[in-house]
Amino acid sequence: MVLKTQENYPSVLLSEAVDAISSLPGVGRRSALRLALHLLKQPEDHVHHFTDSIRRLRDEVHYCRECRMISDDDLCSFCSDSRRNHSQICVVESVRDVMSIEATGQYHGLYHVLGGIISPMAGVGPSDLTIRELVGRLSALEDPSSAEVIMALSGDVEGETTAFYIYRQIEPVGVRVTTLARGLGFGDDLEYADSLTLGRSITARQPFKV
Amino acid sequence: MVLKTQENYPSVLLSEAVDAISSLPGVGRRSALRLALHLLKQPEDHVHHFTDSIRRLRDEVHYCRECRMISDDDLCSFCSDSRRNHSQICVVESVRDVMSIEATGQYHGLYHVLGGIISPMAGVGPSDLTIRELVGRLSALEDPSSAEVIMALSGDVEGETTAFYIYRQIEPVGVRVTTLARGLGFGDDLEYADSLTLGRSITARQPFKV
Repeated sequence: MVLKTQENYPSVLLSEAVDAISSLPGVGRRSALRLALHLLKQPEDHVHHFTDSIRRLRDEVHYCRECRMISDDDLCSFCSDSRRNHSQICVVESVRDVMSIEATGQYHGLYHVLGGIISPMAGVGPSDLTIRELVGRLSALEDPSSAEVIMALSGDVEGETTAFYIYRQIEPVGVRVTTLARGLGFGDDLEYADSLTLGRSITARQPFKV
Repeated sequence: MVLKTQENYPSVLLSEAVDAISSLPGVGRRSALRLALHLLKQPEDHVHHFTDSIRRLRDEVHYCRECRMISDDDLCSFCSDSRRNHSQICVVESVRDVMSIEATGQYHGLYHVLGGIISPMAGVGPSDLTIRELVGRLSALEDPSSAEVIMALSGDVEGETTAFYIYRQIEPVGVRVTTLARGLGFGDDLEYADSLTLGRSITARQPFKV
């Protein structure tokens, strides 16, 4: 049975809070009401801490002047870490991608956060991304020929387009450019793999290691 | 494949915002991160409006002095509405129940919001609810014998217990006490109904209306 929408809020304050909360992606008005009433029941301190921490994040966050990663300082924890390999730069779309790659524990170089992906449909062009900053960063390297840029963008059309555009921009600098390996995931069933991925997995086959 | 948790936040501010957002019911740390990064991309004004509206809700909301409903004033829109039937009082657990009943358009009396339900497991006793206020409200009626109290509590053990407790408290006042009809929902399939509900539907059968 379809429940009627309950849009008669008993209070303007409640209605405004529900409006605000339901502006979050993936949060409907019904969930927003549930969350608003939950916050209403919490101690005042708790709610103030909640709103302050979100406001502080927006107002006080820094972006690393080198790689544009979210940071508490002008230089992020990666760029300021001398134990990391400063001649490797992994180009990603977003902060979350950096966190995903870090979670693998397999990469010890630096990053460059584009802040998006070229998408004419969404009105995002090359100038909206940090591509110029990437080129500047690479040009400033002492020995570009020993550096490596790893394209870690998604495998869809927009990701490929962005990677190709960036490749054309950084090619003159003379760095080595690599890209993430594509193929079947670990644990993937051959029967259910899409033919494009399976095809790439065959053409990019690798020596068998024991 | 199980993804590793990504608990290495690049910024203390981000980590604190994720902590705060994931304290909401039903919001995991992964969703909280997604929401925090979403808010980070929004214009400053938008985020300030977001946090202010939540903070204002918590700091400035009133509860109706009669029925304890959320309100912008001392008296809620129901209690101050002379067109509503002031001799009917519907007892509900929460603000959301009021909104659900209002959405049906079938009730035109007043409400009384208990603010919870008696639950020894959750440490909620009668004194944590607005039962004393309800008794006071009924005692203040000019003609209690013409008034009706409608118990609109959930049909589980805690709801039944609470209704019974309240009944014992208000019985001396001499008001008429009714309770929500229980039975099969509209559109419910007999085959899948639980036997308790089906049993009640049979014993409380009603004249067939054409």
